[in-house]
Amino acid sequence: MSYQYIISVDLGGTNLRVGAVREDGLLEEKEKHPSAAKSGCDVVLNNVLQAIQDVAKKIEMKHGVIRGVALGFPGIVDPQKGIVYKSPHFPDWADLDIFSYFKTALPWPIVVDNDAHMAARGEAWKGAGRGLRNFVMLTFGTGLGGGVIADGKIFHGDRGFAGELGHVCIESQGPLCACGSHGCLEMYVSTHGIRRLVETMDDAEARLKLLDSFSGNPERVTPKGLHELALDGDISANVIFKRMGYYLGIGMASLVNTLGIETFILGGGISEAWDFFVEAAKKELRERTYQETANHIEIKKAVLGDDAGLVGGGACFHPQEKE
Amino acid sequence: MSYQYIISVDLGGTNLRVGAVREDGLLEEKEKHPSAAKSGCDVVLNNVLQAIQDVAKKIEMKHGVIRGVALGFPGIVDPQKGIVYKSPHFPDWADLDIFSYFKTALPWPIVVDNDAHMAARGEAWKGAGRGLRNFVMLTFGTGLGGGVIADGKIFHGDRGFAGELGHVCIESQGPLCACGSHGCLEMYVSTHGIRRLVETMDDAEARLKLLDSFSGNPERVTPKGLHELALDGDISANVIFKRMGYYLGIGMASLVNTLGIETFILGGGISEAWDFFVEAAKKELRERTYQETANHIEIKKAVLGDDAGLVGGGACFHPQEKE
Repeated sequence: MSYQYIISVDLGGTNLRVGAVREDGLLEEKEKHPSAAKSGCDVVLNNVLQAIQDVAKKIEMKHGVIRGVALGFPGIVDPQKGIVYKSPHFPDWADLDIFSYFKTALPWPIVVDNDAHMAARGEAWKGAGRGLRNFVMLTFGTGLGGGVIADGKIFHGDRGFAGELGHVCIESQGPLCACGSHGCLEMYVSTHGIRRLVETMDDAEARLKLLDSFSGNPERVTPKGLHELALDGDISANVIFKRMGYYLGIGMASLVNTLGIETFILGGGISEAWDFFVEAAKKELRERTYQETANHIEIKKAVLGDDAGLVGGGACFHPQEKE
Repeated sequence: MSYQYIISVDLGGTNLRVGAVREDGLLEEKEKHPSAAKSGCDVVLNNVLQAIQDVAKKIEMKHGVIRGVALGFPGIVDPQKGIVYKSPHFPDWADLDIFSYFKTALPWPIVVDNDAHMAARGEAWKGAGRGLRNFVMLTFGTGLGGGVIADGKIFHGDRGFAGELGHVCIESQGPLCACGSHGCLEMYVSTHGIRRLVETMDDAEARLKLLDSFSGNPERVTPKGLHELALDGDISANVIFKRMGYYLGIGMASLVNTLGIETFILGGGISEAWDFFVEAAKKELRERTYQETANHIEIKKAVLGDDAGLVGGGACFHPQEKE
């Protein structure tokens, strides 16, 4: 018997992941390459194309049938037009017509969307969101990505830009964000955010001591490193995660009040440090939402890890997910 | 020829409005009574019932056919169950089963929803939102109400509590809001909000001078009074509206980033002072959203005024609006 497959791409600032998603959600032929963000647009797109063709060859060798290609790209992506307007990790990209580029080169139907939307689709189909009609997914990375699942589908808004949840404002006069606003949630809740929280610690002595573990360089602070310190009982690392949880709860409360959705799924690197931030987030959520809502809020850990985006690409062609 | 009608109720903290909405959206037999918020739950509900029966009698006398009753109530309303959990203007209300109360007393189908949702439906059907697939409506009153229209319908979220847009957080450490959070948009953008903005003016002399126009009592500050001052060239009244516009723009930017919806409709009392705040709101919106979105944002004035909620009740039974 021959299976049907979707070739799925998850491009990030660091890694390019490609895989083949079987119609039942099984992920096969998973590959990881450097995304070569600094090599410029032509090289990156050519690398993606090569990687797709490699995986396609493997699928065809085992007599699989390829039904489509799903491209999850970071940045401001218009899923209807298949255009990436801009992408913070790929500074030379501007109004890139991804759809046409791949449509010309490949014989299969193409779907393009934001990487965080793909991850939300993945968790909805085969992860922590299975069976949920509505949920909000937050993906912790260098920045903070988001996706809103409403009635089982990604909520797009007018042109697919819904779910930029890292750019909900928390402090109107807070630090300047790359998006042009100040005090965005992403400035507190993301790898970038925790670096800022470390740099702005009031207690200078504690700050220097904490930075010592990262060669004194805030840019070397990683969620993983900080998590290890917290596990070892480091009080400052603990304080940082609690502070992050505090801001996360405030942002989530705004989302609850806007979207009326009471289930959150948290994914991405920092979510590993769950035990160190989630109670602080829950506390703010309880205090900052109406009791009638607060009692129903549930926060779940994503289960697909780095595979969420690839699996979600498969979901784009899954019958339940046609939009 | 006999027309079909919906009896529509819009209950506010001050006024109870009732009317009959013809199938083509024409509002007839409009009545306004005091809402008697302080008389307790039994009196208020009985008044609403009486007013419905009065209007129904008038419709039946001209041989109209009543197809249903739409109840727009303020507060935390579960539209599926028809329960008002709580309502800030009616402090003795708790988990009130509005649906059963009216279902028992009246022979027609009953729909219950939040008053701001009804207003958004009204503007969608016969007002500034006609023909728009998606928009966000903000209704300025004592507080700040909201409604999200997505794909032509009210976006409900899990249990109908979506669109509490007055409770998007702007300042995590801002003034305490009745909802339990701090620095909610409603604390800056609403009648309550402008009173606070007046009370917290840095320039004490200007503050006292401005308050003089309201008998020295911040609680007497009204959007209308402040608007009149601004029209007369009062600099402080101007400053207050600009400040309100600044916060409004910040809140709207968070909504754009969350919902990806680029059209706003502003209704309710303060929206009359449009010329004094809207540029400040647009400026923040431009600065605080991605250019790709900012270029598409449109802010429109609601056109149905106080009738929006009543007309929206009619839309609940309109074929396009069945949910």
